[in-house]
Amino acid sequence: MRVAVDVMGGDHGCGVAIQGAKRALEANPHIETLFLIGDKAEIHAALPPGGFRDHRVKVIHASEMLTMDDKPVAAIRKKKDASIVRAMEMVNDGKADAVVSLGNTGGIFAAATFKLGRLPGVERGAIAAQIPTQNGFFVLLDAGANVECKPLHLAQFAVMGSAYFRQMFNCARPRVGILSVGTEDTKGNELSLAAFALCKHLDINFVGNVEGHDLFEESVDVVICDGFVGNIVLKTIESLAVAMFTILKHELKASTRRKLGALLAQYAFRAMKKRMDPEVYGGAPMVGFNGSVMKSHGSATDRAVANAIGVAAQNVQSHVNESIARDIAAANQRIAALAAGQTPPATQA
Amino acid sequence: MRVAVDVMGGDHGCGVAIQGAKRALEANPHIETLFLIGDKAEIHAALPPGGFRDHRVKVIHASEMLTMDDKPVAAIRKKKDASIVRAMEMVNDGKADAVVSLGNTGGIFAAATFKLGRLPGVERGAIAAQIPTQNGFFVLLDAGANVECKPLHLAQFAVMGSAYFRQMFNCARPRVGILSVGTEDTKGNELSLAAFALCKHLDINFVGNVEGHDLFEESVDVVICDGFVGNIVLKTIESLAVAMFTILKHELKASTRRKLGALLAQYAFRAMKKRMDPEVYGGAPMVGFNGSVMKSHGSATDRAVANAIGVAAQNVQSHVNESIARDIAAANQRIAALAAGQTPPATQA
Repeated sequence: MRVAVDVMGGDHGCGVAIQGAKRALEANPHIETLFLIGDKAEIHAALPPGGFRDHRVKVIHASEMLTMDDKPVAAIRKKKDASIVRAMEMVNDGKADAVVSLGNTGGIFAAATFKLGRLPGVERGAIAAQIPTQNGFFVLLDAGANVECKPLHLAQFAVMGSAYFRQMFNCARPRVGILSVGTEDTKGNELSLAAFALCKHLDINFVGNVEGHDLFEESVDVVICDGFVGNIVLKTIESLAVAMFTILKHELKASTRRKLGALLAQYAFRAMKKRMDPEVYGGAPMVGFNGSVMKSHGSATDRAVANAIGVAAQNVQSHVNESIARDIAAANQRIAALAAGQTPPATQA
Repeated sequence: MRVAVDVMGGDHGCGVAIQGAKRALEANPHIETLFLIGDKAEIHAALPPGGFRDHRVKVIHASEMLTMDDKPVAAIRKKKDASIVRAMEMVNDGKADAVVSLGNTGGIFAAATFKLGRLPGVERGAIAAQIPTQNGFFVLLDAGANVECKPLHLAQFAVMGSAYFRQMFNCARPRVGILSVGTEDTKGNELSLAAFALCKHLDINFVGNVEGHDLFEESVDVVICDGFVGNIVLKTIESLAVAMFTILKHELKASTRRKLGALLAQYAFRAMKKRMDPEVYGGAPMVGFNGSVMKSHGSATDRAVANAIGVAAQNVQSHVNESIARDIAAANQRIAALAAGQTPPATQA
């Protein structure tokens, strides 16, 4: 297992990514090689005195980097020695198995698309965000990569999300739903309804439409939508969670009595915060590519980066991509049969 | 001021709506007449012994009602004596000024569209949901009436939302934003980008794109999106708020120490809950119609119904519809000028 970490592009310089890599190596003995990819001088300046003292670490110099202002596709084409381009090329060349980056999301996605390429039969890669609920979580995809989608794309997200969830979380038949405006089969817009018509013929555990009210009810494992809806939903959730903690904090400070109560109950708030903490996952995987790609937040801490590296490694170990490729091939056959007016074979569900 | 309350269609029979009407009459002396519309026998059975003892109340019999299973448009056409149809007709006939209903949202919207009609120049009515933030709130439209929209519809939602907010909340130039996947002008899907191109030429305080992260930052007053996105966002917010309270409750019960803390801080939780409470608004107005229409939740309490009636009354008193009609006429002129290749006059913003 070899992981290529693009250490450039985080909000706080490459030190955080390097610290994260250190933590990840300590926690994941099965990582054989960890490449730190970026500006050599900056990396060496950020390394602890005496270097890493872990023979698994290799520094790969890249003279350029993508900034948050770069237009993804144009930048990937122009900056041939950008760290994220080099990272993707290492996987493409068979020198690494997974890429982790804190950089520009669009840039990572574009680099994955053009330098790594999609798995056979996959029409669009997608960002799969893991969102915590009371006792578990669900995976939402696409969380922002594709603002315009066709029904086939959504159907493939369903297949990829199902395979991802099954392999990563040891769940035989994850429940897959399409995010819509009601749970009835007839509710939705043109896109969601057409995707519904495809999904019900796929060999996934398709539970039909789910609506916003269902998201935190733990009745669905994989939630499908286009990247426009997904990005808005993901950010709305993050934003409301922060707002509610702020309101709670404010209210708990309003009197001495409340302050005392807050002190006594402080571990309840900590536990709650921990449960909602996006750092646990460290970032979001990009699925559908010829290699494992993990996007970490630009403001990620070293702990988040370490977790992202851990998830990327698990992705490889769990054979997520092999499963996606196999399931997509089967799904595409079913969809082709449907398009030809034939009835695809019955599903297990 | 005369309000027509469709008392049928709530989850708990007509008693809740009637109790809500009673509370609303006590709180709103400027309501001259309040019509209770529905099955006469059911209404009389639900009235307090001796009736209402308020001369402002009039019972109007309607022999039919819309159920949650009814297909809105078909049901409105078929059930000519449905309570919601009668309520809309009363406004259309000049006998009432506003309609309040706890029934099937699609049914209310269809009845408003076909029996009341849209204000001149308005292409689509919309549901405007008021969503609380830490120190205030924002209005989101469309919250679910139109799952497919054109750019013109979104631009008109911007104008209607702006007029609604200005009149209802005494705010000269409410900030209007388009819900998108990033704040940059170039971020969005085809629909949101085309709506952006129109909105920047309208005489509204257009702040451009807003993303999920901005929603609770109090940087925008009116948030525009199609009804598919709006409905998902609204329900996701409601669902997450409930989930977070559930987690908090669970965590606070985990030890005696936490329980004691929770007891001391109980008013903080109550204040927080009150702030997030959708019952304060009682429901969501449907804007763009020839009359004030307020949709209350099927499971609304009498307090929520009373608040909904209060909001409907305020809608009439604040001349929301006159303002919408005037602003839409001006906006349509600007949009027509744009379509003709002319530059519309500069806006105030």
